[in-house]
Amino acid sequence: MIRAGVVGGTGYTGVELLRILALHTEVEVAVVTSRADAGTRVDAVYPSLRGSIDVEFSLPELETLATCDVVFFATPNGTAMLMAESLVARGVKVIDLSADFRIKDAKEWSEWYGMEHACPDLIADAAYGLPEINREAIKSAQVIACPGCYPTAVQLGFLPLIEAGLIDTDFLIADVKSGVSGAGRKAELATLMSETGESFKAYAVKGHRHLPEITQGLTAIAGKTVGLTFVPHLTPMIRGIHATLYARLLEYKASSETLAEIQALYEARYSHETFVDVLPQGSHPDTRNVRGSNNCQISIFQPQGSQTLVILSVIDNLVKGAAGQAVQNMNLLFGFKEEMGLRVIALYP
Amino acid sequence: MIRAGVVGGTGYTGVELLRILALHTEVEVAVVTSRADAGTRVDAVYPSLRGSIDVEFSLPELETLATCDVVFFATPNGTAMLMAESLVARGVKVIDLSADFRIKDAKEWSEWYGMEHACPDLIADAAYGLPEINREAIKSAQVIACPGCYPTAVQLGFLPLIEAGLIDTDFLIADVKSGVSGAGRKAELATLMSETGESFKAYAVKGHRHLPEITQGLTAIAGKTVGLTFVPHLTPMIRGIHATLYARLLEYKASSETLAEIQALYEARYSHETFVDVLPQGSHPDTRNVRGSNNCQISIFQPQGSQTLVILSVIDNLVKGAAGQAVQNMNLLFGFKEEMGLRVIALYP
Amino acid sequence: MIRAGVVGGTGYTGVELLRILALHTEVEVAVVTSRADAGTRVDAVYPSLRGSIDVEFSLPELETLATCDVVFFATPNGTAMLMAESLVARGVKVIDLSADFRIKDAKEWSEWYGMEHACPDLIADAAYGLPEINREAIKSAQVIACPGCYPTAVQLGFLPLIEAGLIDTDFLIADVKSGVSGAGRKAELATLMSETGESFKAYAVKGHRHLPEITQGLTAIAGKTVGLTFVPHLTPMIRGIHATLYARLLEYKASSETLAEIQALYEARYSHETFVDVLPQGSHPDTRNVRGSNNCQISIFQPQGSQTLVILSVIDNLVKGAAGQAVQNMNLLFGFKEEMGLRVIALYP
Amino acid sequence: MIRAGVVGGTGYTGVELLRILALHTEVEVAVVTSRADAGTRVDAVYPSLRGSIDVEFSLPELETLATCDVVFFATPNGTAMLMAESLVARGVKVIDLSADFRIKDAKEWSEWYGMEHACPDLIADAAYGLPEINREAIKSAQVIACPGCYPTAVQLGFLPLIEAGLIDTDFLIADVKSGVSGAGRKAELATLMSETGESFKAYAVKGHRHLPEITQGLTAIAGKTVGLTFVPHLTPMIRGIHATLYARLLEYKASSETLAEIQALYEARYSHETFVDVLPQGSHPDTRNVRGSNNCQISIFQPQGSQTLVILSVIDNLVKGAAGQAVQNMNLLFGFKEEMGLRVIALYP
Repeated sequence: MIRAGVVGGTGYTGVELLRILALHTEVEVAVVTSRADAGTRVDAVYPSLRGSIDVEFSLPELETLATCDVVFFATPNGTAMLMAESLVARGVKVIDLSADFRIKDAKEWSEWYGMEHACPDLIADAAYGLPEINREAIKSAQVIACPGCYPTAVQLGFLPLIEAGLIDTDFLIADVKSGVSGAGRKAELATLMSETGESFKAYAVKGHRHLPEITQGLTAIAGKTVGLTFVPHLTPMIRGIHATLYARLLEYKASSETLAEIQALYEARYSHETFVDVLPQGSHPDTRNVRGSNNCQISIFQPQGSQTLVILSVIDNLVKGAAGQAVQNMNLLFGFKEEMGLRVIALYP
Repeated sequence: MIRAGVVGGTGYTGVELLRILALHTEVEVAVVTSRADAGTRVDAVYPSLRGSIDVEFSLPELETLATCDVVFFATPNGTAMLMAESLVARGVKVIDLSADFRIKDAKEWSEWYGMEHACPDLIADAAYGLPEINREAIKSAQVIACPGCYPTAVQLGFLPLIEAGLIDTDFLIADVKSGVSGAGRKAELATLMSETGESFKAYAVKGHRHLPEITQGLTAIAGKTVGLTFVPHLTPMIRGIHATLYARLLEYKASSETLAEIQALYEARYSHETFVDVLPQGSHPDTRNVRGSNNCQISIFQPQGSQTLVILSVIDNLVKGAAGQAVQNMNLLFGFKEEMGLRVIALYP
Repeated sequence: MIRAGVVGGTGYTGVELLRILALHTEVEVAVVTSRADAGTRVDAVYPSLRGSIDVEFSLPELETLATCDVVFFATPNGTAMLMAESLVARGVKVIDLSADFRIKDAKEWSEWYGMEHACPDLIADAAYGLPEINREAIKSAQVIACPGCYPTAVQLGFLPLIEAGLIDTDFLIADVKSGVSGAGRKAELATLMSETGESFKAYAVKGHRHLPEITQGLTAIAGKTVGLTFVPHLTPMIRGIHATLYARLLEYKASSETLAEIQALYEARYSHETFVDVLPQGSHPDTRNVRGSNNCQISIFQPQGSQTLVILSVIDNLVKGAAGQAVQNMNLLFGFKEEMGLRVIALYP
Repeated sequence: MIRAGVVGGTGYTGVELLRILALHTEVEVAVVTSRADAGTRVDAVYPSLRGSIDVEFSLPELETLATCDVVFFATPNGTAMLMAESLVARGVKVIDLSADFRIKDAKEWSEWYGMEHACPDLIADAAYGLPEINREAIKSAQVIACPGCYPTAVQLGFLPLIEAGLIDTDFLIADVKSGVSGAGRKAELATLMSETGESFKAYAVKGHRHLPEITQGLTAIAGKTVGLTFVPHLTPMIRGIHATLYARLLEYKASSETLAEIQALYEARYSHETFVDVLPQGSHPDTRNVRGSNNCQISIFQPQGSQTLVILSVIDNLVKGAAGQAVQNMNLLFGFKEEMGLRVIALYP
């Protein structure tokens, strides 16, 4: 039984962490912090947790957090980097769900996130927490940078093709659709029900913060700089990410044979991955089928036998795209079974 | 480990049963039937179950079902009554999620359901599966009639007041709102997204089939015939029932004292009930806080200190209103812990 | 052609006014104010108005507004009362969509709205803008207090029964469901898509600000103080109000005859009202059928022939519940045809 | 005043036609047919039309329809082709909202639509009803083939770039998202609220019937065969199409200059088009801003100054993608002002 702390427990990734950790048999949720709600019971703010979480929100103080074995940061960007070094020095593992340690180049990070990085030295040590790519490094890390939601769906979708060197990586396209919970629990006009319900739009087409993260990841896989056009969209639902990925085959054979080979490639690549599920050829993944679960479901198409492949990749942005993946990382860090606490079946309908 | 069968596994209550049973540590899902999909893998129809359920749909045949310890009927009304007697004769426990055994008066049942009852003799033996009222009878029953979704929310809401004899039972009002999954998984115009999305309406105001069931239940509690006006509504969401109940106090004292007494009454009545949660005074329950869970959350109000009480009662229609309650009944039947397989936290947001 | 000003043009009732007024053939939208957006083109904030409204937001200054024939206040409560007197003095008609002039008793208003009233003397002169009750007073008023959305649906629903003296007005119940646009265009957690989507709840059960307004209205009709229990609910859709009203017949005859008489009573009462539509007996109104239109659709039921009547009344909260009713009042004020600019058919699906 | 007939008035495009035609000052809705509902008042099926449409559904008989000046077919594919020739012979103009006359190659049509074409000779005479491309041909046509919803959004989005010869037409990508009303008013599992709400998916990735229509249109503009990858998606809302289009510049200059030139190109191309609105540079169109209106709003991006352009194009699938465009065509056919009956502002929120 380990003691876990959650910093920033009032956001959607925070409460999702609590939902998962509350039922994890090897974890005691010892500390949950929130500056705004300190002194209030957690289940008074989140009645869904009544009977499952029996703590009050506390202030995010080092002494309290240092009593934990692991501390999760479910905070806005720029918070984890202020406390991570001290916690690591006290022997506490840090799992950051924000973007603070995702980008290896501190200067590039500053440009996209609009602030100086507070502990650039720690970035190199942080393991990028996508287990399907980086499992061994995760196991021995002090700090884990959990991937963003878009980067998780996109990287898992492109991974086998890029590893196998089959596609033109100069012209990748990721057209990705997200539910509104991805915007977080903030009082903002843009994510009101009246603004986002019954409507669909693209946003940040000029450049979204997840672009450098995805590019960094795909570049590492490809072994050379990739060219990616990434367009995020807001879809009128709460949870779910659907990535529609387009890539051109380098060697083009117009045949269903090609597709069968690529299908086999994906199945082989993910055959030992509990949380990545390659659907039978011809199936279309549906975000509802992973809602509430830590799964990523993937399909591969070659429409009309053309040179352009279409890969569909879906996750729950708050689970595999955030809190579930964080717990998967924790399990690896502490030597628990990787799926512990994550055997949850999607809520359908 | 018991063997469970699910007849009618392609409806929403069927797939919800599978979601719960797949993770129940004392149950093997041995048989899942569907006339339409016999021969197809269950997870081909429901990709959310990939990796969790490893069976094919089969035909609903007695010989196969008789190999089970318990058979759930998640079928349209009129099916369970055709097979229940034979299964009981073979020593199989029957848990019926349809309406076949809910109404004690076979003639009244026929009037509301528009068919003759196929085994009226078995009705008297069937236990009404609302554990909070009927726990002891459930434990030793051969056949359990799981309550409807509306009746569950309404009865749990009115129960303490009627037991205590505090209200005028001649004029009870239940204004209840349901998500559209309550209409089931049927190809019908009325529940298309384009018909039900972004709109709200009442339906069946003249008389809904759950009216005699609720009246029968409340009458049993009151010890005399109650008068109930029940108005169901369709609300543009998938899961959830919100009952708003109105009742007039027999002895009227306009004071917050009254309300505190009633709050205490509810808390006492449900203090040993795992799945009924009386919220702190002044809180409003929200269906999202029970979505995917087996909980019922209840609040009591006395607006402006008036004689009319308002009770709010919410459940997930597919869990506490159907599949979760069915598993709760199964746990009681087989002597498992009542919450086994049901410790699920609501999906928020 | 009259000149119209809209104060507070950035809220939902403001933009809805612009949608209607832009196509009104007797109105020029001359001034639209917004402190926050002054200097910005209206259609830059609301791209739906591109090509229809060719003005910039300006500051809400008396001199500018005084150039108008009529000024609409689509502002938060407490704003109209600061400017109304000056505008009236300059000969400008004032149509207030906020609550400032709805409650005749300034002290009661202060208690519910938490501020002193700035011009209590004007309240008595203000006409309550529900044309179906108050048409003549509206025609000659200087200031019109547009009813709230809940009060419009509830009063139109109860009106014929109370006028005819058929029901027990001591125990009226209004269980009303609203879309989230009723909460306005404000950056608040409570109305985020992630908070209100796929969920249903009651709120303000202890006492909602529209309670005294409805009570005042019904009391005026009844000629004596009525007793009303009013429970508002938030439903996961953007537009629409559905009122489910319960009332007990004073003289009870259990027969369909009673219902036919009441149906006839409603049809007669509203036969000359363009915007109130009594549906054929047995129909259930659906909020989608009035979405975007100025109509109120009403049905009357007597479930199981009981003493308790159920009246269903639906409107679009932003049209008949706000901007449309405001334009209906304007038409009366200026002698235009009452339906001018309001012949809009609901958007279905 | 012309007499109009609507065949197939019970589907979503049919009722949308009625919504528009009912307020068109030069049109009398004389005949509305429906085999299923013949003899029933139109407004009994569609209460939103109460007070606006005063006819009954009739059987689709030639004699009745031949009394009209124009007949709209809002029918499933394969119906219009059975009656069009006879109507044309009687001097009636035919406007077909289905796919029967969209594809010029009858053999290709048969392959995609799975039936023989009943009057292949008429195909060549039918004008493709996209006024922005084909206005003159439309004015003098006997039969008009209204474009599909996806084809409208995609063609208007790509048009200026292809006309100007700026992009590589061998590798065009159209990632398009539709509301569920595009699937029509049919009793089907796939479009139930419980199946499509709170979820997002791609469908028909292997090949959708609108692919040959779009390819035919873009090929005609390009003057050579184009290569298009078209992926349609179902989004959890009722109305709206959002096309995200990707194209590679043939001559690549990494500069914002390029984008400004392309913006100017689009603005010039559509400067005289009432219903195509090029948004200011940097704006993202939102489907809600065209909901209920006949507008198409378009934005152009060059993310990170790359060679790949991103064009966003939104319409209401039932208006500019169906019924509104049909009325626009009718206006051209009969010499009315092109926007007559179509000056409707989108419903926001």
